[in-house]
Amino acid sequence: MDQLHIAILGGDARYLEMIKKLSEDRRIKMELVGFNQLNQGFTGIKQTDFSSLEVEKLDAVILPIPGIDKTGSLHAVFSNEEIYLSEHWFSRIQESSVVFTGISTPYLEKMKEMNKLKLIPLMDRDDVAIYNSIPTAEGTIMLAIQNTNFTVHESTVLVLGFGRVGMSVASKFKALGANVFVGARKTADFARINEMGMGNFHMNDLAAYTGQCDILINTIPVKVVTAPVLNPLKSNALIIDLASKPGGVDFEYAKQRGIHAIHALGLPGMVAPRTAGEILANIISQLIFTH
Amino acid sequence: MDQLHIAILGGDARYLEMIKKLSEDRRIKMELVGFNQLNQGFTGIKQTDFSSLEVEKLDAVILPIPGIDKTGSLHAVFSNEEIYLSEHWFSRIQESSVVFTGISTPYLEKMKEMNKLKLIPLMDRDDVAIYNSIPTAEGTIMLAIQNTNFTVHESTVLVLGFGRVGMSVASKFKALGANVFVGARKTADFARINEMGMGNFHMNDLAAYTGQCDILINTIPVKVVTAPVLNPLKSNALIIDLASKPGGVDFEYAKQRGIHAIHALGLPGMVAPRTAGEILANIISQLIFTH
Repeated sequence: MDQLHIAILGGDARYLEMIKKLSEDRRIKMELVGFNQLNQGFTGIKQTDFSSLEVEKLDAVILPIPGIDKTGSLHAVFSNEEIYLSEHWFSRIQESSVVFTGISTPYLEKMKEMNKLKLIPLMDRDDVAIYNSIPTAEGTIMLAIQNTNFTVHESTVLVLGFGRVGMSVASKFKALGANVFVGARKTADFARINEMGMGNFHMNDLAAYTGQCDILINTIPVKVVTAPVLNPLKSNALIIDLASKPGGVDFEYAKQRGIHAIHALGLPGMVAPRTAGEILANIISQLIFTH
Repeated sequence: MDQLHIAILGGDARYLEMIKKLSEDRRIKMELVGFNQLNQGFTGIKQTDFSSLEVEKLDAVILPIPGIDKTGSLHAVFSNEEIYLSEHWFSRIQESSVVFTGISTPYLEKMKEMNKLKLIPLMDRDDVAIYNSIPTAEGTIMLAIQNTNFTVHESTVLVLGFGRVGMSVASKFKALGANVFVGARKTADFARINEMGMGNFHMNDLAAYTGQCDILINTIPVKVVTAPVLNPLKSNALIIDLASKPGGVDFEYAKQRGIHAIHALGLPGMVAPRTAGEILANIISQLIFTH
């Protein structure tokens, strides 16, 4: 079998672990662009100059997690070169090849349409989000243990939202012996929360539950933790907001009330960059050999 | 019912939480000695001068966690006074009253014999050790998440010892999705470890297991993690030693091999002082009303 030819253009610490993991697969031939500040000996993989990369021959291109901004600039933490991926550059990618990115951007969407690219935004995928929810839940546990003077065990934890992150976070706090209550809106979610041995409530009733809460964890990217919700909260309660910017918590009001609120973003890359990289490598491996 | 008359002599942050908790019980009348650097308004409890404490009238005396050293000196974190508990002072304690201490000391044993004291070293108690193993396990989880670049989930964790701490630590890592193997010596322990869904091995075979290990947690207060055990360990493995000084790990050899080894002592007071104080308060409450 011929080797699949992959180029990795830029990336951060998670990508190093991904590269390490992908390099163990002999069916893959890799070239790295935008890693020139790394020790050349790193895992023995060829570092290629951007200008000499033979784009036409690539089976897959892996772009950084934040994608490509509107100037075409490449986010390469381990490089001091400025690299721009022009419209012309994207036109050289074969129709049969796959382009991975963390998230899509308007510029990438435009390139996709112009060149009929097979663009795969990894972070939008259900499987990636679920795998990433594991290190997110562990990071949340770490923050909870660090920032309270009581144990998670027997504390009352409210988890807002029962999506991919909410489900993992709730079940791991439950596993550590917390009294977990999950706020949701769908009847099927109420049923699943009950099956998992946790309490459930409708998000409309949230303010009735915060008075008993020791740790409030939000996963909903809408301002749900508002003044009426914060008012009954104990002053020594801890709030951890996992929702992407601007989050779901009225941080200003929490501060006024003297309640410690943490907006925790990017936990997988912080607490488990190796695992975060392996998650990406596993998904990419699956996709390039089956698409 | 008459109130029970208790004096608390010295102590650290855990004792503040214990005092707060005990003060909620109206059957108890408390006096604090050795807390004169605390805000007088603290929970509204009477602060008493050591010299004016009516020792003869006390139903219970609570001494600090480290007990009393051979000079009779009182360990009082929240006081700048030097207080000494003399032989004469101990002789004033009624035979019917109870004396609590964290651990016993030769001096306290002598006082006990001389004055027929009912001395209760709290930290020696099974129940206290088991309750304290909960914050210890949570602190261990916090250290594991902080000091590795991978998730606890799916990591291979060896726990050495299946006593009060080992059992709690093993089950909580298991609950977070780790592959847990427990090293023990008793056949009943092997059976219990198996029943809990974890792997078991005989401590004599430890060196055969360390090669696959990501996180090694020791609870045995004997030097068990020696060179032959450390040699097969991956260089990015993490060692957490929970055994009291000098611990069970050859730290010098681990350092030579570049393996990160943490001697983690006093985790309950660090990660959950409120819970640690409540544990003591609950046990003391149970004992003073039933002894």
